Amino acid sequence: MRVGDRWYRTIWPGDDGWSVMIIDQTALPAALTVRRLTDVDQVAEAIVTMRVRGAPLIGVTAAYGVALALRSDPGNAAFDSAIRLLAGTRPTAVNLRWALDRVEAEIRAHPPEGRAAAAYRLAAAMADDDVEVCRRIGEYGEGLIRERWESLGRSRPVQILTHCNAGWLATVDWGTALAPIYRAHDAGIPVHVWVDETRPRNQGLLTEWELGCHGVPRTVVTDNAGGHLMRTGRVDLCLVGTDRTTRNGDVANKIGTYLKALAAFDNGVPFYVAAPSSSIDWSLADGGAVPIEERTGRELGLSDDIPVMNPAFDVTPARLVTKLVTERGVVAASAPDLAALFPEGSRGSVASGPSSTGRS
Amino acid sequence: MRVGDRWYRTIWPGDDGWSVMIIDQTALPAALTVRRLTDVDQVAEAIVTMRVRGAPLIGVTAAYGVALALRSDPGNAAFDSAIRLLAGTRPTAVNLRWALDRVEAEIRAHPPEGRAAAAYRLAAAMADDDVEVCRRIGEYGEGLIRERWESLGRSRPVQILTHCNAGWLATVDWGTALAPIYRAHDAGIPVHVWVDETRPRNQGLLTEWELGCHGVPRTVVTDNAGGHLMRTGRVDLCLVGTDRTTRNGDVANKIGTYLKALAAFDNGVPFYVAAPSSSIDWSLADGGAVPIEERTGRELGLSDDIPVMNPAFDVTPARLVTKLVTERGVVAASAPDLAALFPEGSRGSVASGPSSTGRS
Repeated sequence: MRVGDRWYRTIWPGDDGWSVMIIDQTALPAALTVRRLTDVDQVAEAIVTMRVRGAPLIGVTAAYGVALALRSDPGNAAFDSAIRLLAGTRPTAVNLRWALDRVEAEIRAHPPEGRAAAAYRLAAAMADDDVEVCRRIGEYGEGLIRERWESLGRSRPVQILTHCNAGWLATVDWGTALAPIYRAHDAGIPVHVWVDETRPRNQGLLTEWELGCHGVPRTVVTDNAGGHLMRTGRVDLCLVGTDRTTRNGDVANKIGTYLKALAAFDNGVPFYVAAPSSSIDWSLADGGAVPIEERTGRELGLSDDIPVMNPAFDVTPARLVTKLVTERGVVAASAPDLAALFPEGSRGSVASGPSSTGRS
Repeated sequence: MRVGDRWYRTIWPGDDGWSVMIIDQTALPAALTVRRLTDVDQVAEAIVTMRVRGAPLIGVTAAYGVALALRSDPGNAAFDSAIRLLAGTRPTAVNLRWALDRVEAEIRAHPPEGRAAAAYRLAAAMADDDVEVCRRIGEYGEGLIRERWESLGRSRPVQILTHCNAGWLATVDWGTALAPIYRAHDAGIPVHVWVDETRPRNQGLLTEWELGCHGVPRTVVTDNAGGHLMRTGRVDLCLVGTDRTTRNGDVANKIGTYLKALAAFDNGVPFYVAAPSSSIDWSLADGGAVPIEERTGRELGLSDDIPVMNPAFDVTPARLVTKLVTERGVVAASAPDLAALFPEGSRGSVASGPSSTGRS
């Protein structure tokens, strides 16, 4: 992703060959600030405070976190404690567990002296895999946008509503929900994006900033506005990300997603979810069992004497999801269709995520 | 409504016998500030900038605005221009037009020298009518809350979700949606209110403040959270106000209301709308024709270089409204039921609002 005249990923190895560089997303969109992480506690802190955020990116970041931990102590106890620390940072996004499971599966067998180097290599490979997965989601999703444009007789820009930030900043590069939009824009398909503000953390402003860096026309609206936009015919499709997709296609995503899916359904607007396979939790039959993170009420920015509750995610049932856009193609949000597309996942092999579906 | 140890209405005549006192709601909840309005331009400014807000209250405020205008010039041209100025302040709430139509109908026939005094009397009577209408809505709505409490076996507090502020501050006293909550609380029915933040103007904080003054348990949530609360069984009923109700029971209310109504319907949660008859627009068959005010994007408080759109209302179709709570009782949101309850209104007699249905 280009910011001004430089290309960035959201996470990369430091020049010293061992520290980990991130973009501090709590400083955006006001400032583009790069931070160096040098131990696993800093990594955990960066995930908890949402310096890095977005399900795919926190998975990769956690993998780097284990590498940092193993660099200072490659023993089993330190390994266990790093996994435990990182797994507890954010409860809803399953990519975190997926990434840690993969690190566990591929690194534990190494003798301690080889673990750190292997973990760094694995984290870097997972970062590359994520870029490739997002690139493919972008391709498949671009097809959906192009289809809509054709169905409009190429008469006007395709109006897309998105919630939260499932863009470049939520992944290593490209994004999930925004990847198709970048590709469509680059291919000359005119698009305009309605960007939900996404209270309380205002990730919509990250989306607005990203889209602006790429030159994509966009308008920020309050989280309240989407229903009205859909009822008045101003949205052609919705496109959002997911923090955890269950076996039947239920989608746990940023709080408020469910409300937009209801409005899309009520108005016949297609509701697409960009879902890398790393976000699929094959162990859950449906969204009822997804743990929903509750974050501090201070995120609302209100006076301390005001009672507040702040759930960070909600569950959109599969019946409201028109299609899932995965790195293997566009698929119905249903257990049989997902299982057919990811037979290895549906057999319970959680570790067979992007690595087995990676670059061709 | 009591604030600390004093009772307030939201609007009242000044000690001088002619100016109009209001509570400046843009200063709340940080400070309770009373302002004196001395001419019609100040009244129009107070409505446009939302120093006074809420459909019932802006109706009464506009009536006082005409009185102030007639005091300085009781001629027909000044009368016309005051009506025009005030009618243009807020396009969605029909109470404004209802109030101005009533002033027109009852005052124009007076000779100029008697107009100002008659207009002041009428505005004061309309304020009293509004209090009585709200008191009755409170009675009927309390019945619904009590019913729910009984159906829960009186086992726990009734969980109520509300959007925006349809309380004391939106009316002359009591409120519409909040009146039943105050009455239920005072009657010893345990209630807890989920208060939507209501971006971009955060009227939820007015609701939180009001409820707090009255000692009602409440929790503020983002506008995104309501769907999740309903899906997880934490809302027993929704109760909101309306800025314009059409003949068939469609409800134009604060932006975001429609999304909550969809979530309520999807989860079998009753969705009640407190609708004084002054909010019913008998001239519109359905909500499709309600003009939706778009306010300045600056209300979102974002950097000026961010493109923003800010629609202030949306339309909730009658099929999502469980019941309307009016000053004449609880009624289905349907054209025949509304017409049966308000036969004079459905015959096109717009002026027959609370005055003909007033205190008994």
